[in-house]
Amino acid sequence: MFLRGAFRALALNRNLTPIAVRTFASKQREVPALTCDRYPVQRGSFAELTDDDVAVFRGILGGADTSRVLTAADEVQDYNIDYLRSVRGYGRVVLKPRTTAEVAELLRYCNERRLAVCPQGGNTGLVGGSVPVFDEVVLSLQLMDTIERIDEYSGIVVCQAGCVLATLEEQVGARGLVMPLDLGAKGSCHIGGNVSTNAGGLRLVRYGNLHGSVLGVEAVTAEGRVLDLMSNFKKDNTGYHLKHLFIGSEGTLGIITRLSMFCPTASRSVNVAFLGLHSYDDVKRTFLAAKRGLGEVLSSCEMIDAASLDSCTRFFGLQSPIDKYPFYMLIETSGSDAGHDE
Amino acid sequence: MFLRGAFRALALNRNLTPIAVRTFASKQREVPALTCDRYPVQRGSFAELTDDDVAVFRGILGGADTSRVLTAADEVQDYNIDYLRSVRGYGRVVLKPRTTAEVAELLRYCNERRLAVCPQGGNTGLVGGSVPVFDEVVLSLQLMDTIERIDEYSGIVVCQAGCVLATLEEQVGARGLVMPLDLGAKGSCHIGGNVSTNAGGLRLVRYGNLHGSVLGVEAVTAEGRVLDLMSNFKKDNTGYHLKHLFIGSEGTLGIITRLSMFCPTASRSVNVAFLGLHSYDDVKRTFLAAKRGLGEVLSSCEMIDAASLDSCTRFFGLQSPIDKYPFYMLIETSGSDAGHDE
Repeated sequence: MFLRGAFRALALNRNLTPIAVRTFASKQREVPALTCDRYPVQRGSFAELTDDDVAVFRGILGGADTSRVLTAADEVQDYNIDYLRSVRGYGRVVLKPRTTAEVAELLRYCNERRLAVCPQGGNTGLVGGSVPVFDEVVLSLQLMDTIERIDEYSGIVVCQAGCVLATLEEQVGARGLVMPLDLGAKGSCHIGGNVSTNAGGLRLVRYGNLHGSVLGVEAVTAEGRVLDLMSNFKKDNTGYHLKHLFIGSEGTLGIITRLSMFCPTASRSVNVAFLGLHSYDDVKRTFLAAKRGLGEVLSSCEMIDAASLDSCTRFFGLQSPIDKYPFYMLIETSGSDAGHDE
Repeated sequence: MFLRGAFRALALNRNLTPIAVRTFASKQREVPALTCDRYPVQRGSFAELTDDDVAVFRGILGGADTSRVLTAADEVQDYNIDYLRSVRGYGRVVLKPRTTAEVAELLRYCNERRLAVCPQGGNTGLVGGSVPVFDEVVLSLQLMDTIERIDEYSGIVVCQAGCVLATLEEQVGARGLVMPLDLGAKGSCHIGGNVSTNAGGLRLVRYGNLHGSVLGVEAVTAEGRVLDLMSNFKKDNTGYHLKHLFIGSEGTLGIITRLSMFCPTASRSVNVAFLGLHSYDDVKRTFLAAKRGLGEVLSSCEMIDAASLDSCTRFFGLQSPIDKYPFYMLIETSGSDAGHDE
């Protein structure tokens, strides 16, 4: 509940529309069935959490009266249910480290005790991957939200994995830069989760995927070993590029705790066109024409079919700006010169 | 010698200036000392090549009278000396497979026999990494130069690793696309070598590094296993991204045999500015101004110091277009609209 409040506050502070922020699951709505009751899944042979384990966690995260170890059922529930309310785990404890060293110590202990761990970022995923399936310990990166450095010359930002994407966007934007990815959940998703899931998003057509943008990661493996794969050099081509294994591996190889990312220069002029098209062939033709005619200023090119648009306009009570067509396209350009727009 | 001829022909056919083509070492010039005589290096405990091995290689590569197994000393020598003529190995055989299956069969055999292998692309590297140190078997990808597919909609090219960069550039250029990398050796370097060494090149500032551009690779490991890590989907974010381990691993994990790469849309208008600057601070200021003012059309931004420019003009008998300065910058823009130039 306090989380929902926090995210609301965040939304208001940043002038984001409520739609852009995915809040944690609301308690007013029905609690979904347990994942293990709905699906034929089998718990691995992991240990069960004891009070002694919780005491150790408290010791690592600030002592007996810490607020960084949650065990109250109503507090823990939010971390067990995904955004779509389609799955639910029954994890009994949520851990909130602030530093890489704390993450390492927690994982080392869990590994020795054979306690299963579910790393969690903004819990905005739509495929149920961010919550426990059974009783995994939830390791939330919410408090690891320090932006360490933004270099306007090189365009490089270095930050902890729990930074919210929209916060980063705001901070790098103030220095004339832009985050190379943008997606619907930006008001609450974490950059660490974006990288761990190799999120694509709306700017992929312009700035490429995260394998090109992420310059380095720091990650902690399951046995608590810290891997320093950080680099602040865009042309770095020394050694094996192990950081790429962590991009998209969804926490299975370790937890990303810090990262450095290249941010392109922000565009001063942004234009959006929304088109209706008669056929899929027209969509293809328009795509090619946009690539060729708009070239380097083309920043986004998305196709929407009639059924998708209908369900969006109905669900959100909106009205389409143009008449009915079987296909629609959203084309965004962003350039440095407003006079160069069509 | 036939190679030198071939590359010359290539240069003339494609209207490349001779400077753009790095030919194989000329026999007219002095033969460098053996690497193992010049440096304190120790040969590993590998087997020595026998006539039986050569017979097996001939069997794999087209039978007894094959032209794809070189053993004549003067033919093999070209593959033992690097472009800068700074190192020399004494490999006794050069193998020229045409297919991935042949590469796999050759590596499987060499692994069983414990014969060391040196994979070789265009042999244009400047650090001696492309030639044997001792008597390694040279596996040249020269004949694996098939371009399988160029898709002008998606901008994806699929080709064998031995394709020459300039050939690819010409072929994708004919379809309105551009290779995302460009470098001095393009007239003879292979795309497989570019990827294996994670070559940066002149277009990195615009199109990012190869981790972003390479969509998939097919590679053969030392024991002859073919890894299919091909993908033709720019947004592919499934599974572990093992292909990135091969980008920049310089043949140590296996030999890249095929790859797919994303090629951006070619720019219609290219402009180059060559500036003289009074200080390094001015260089930094100009870099930032170029990034902000030129934004998305900035395609290249290189700094040259006075000593480098002097040695270039002297060596090539050229004249600098501007007076003497301590620093120079080469700034290239490429955009879709010529009217938008300064």
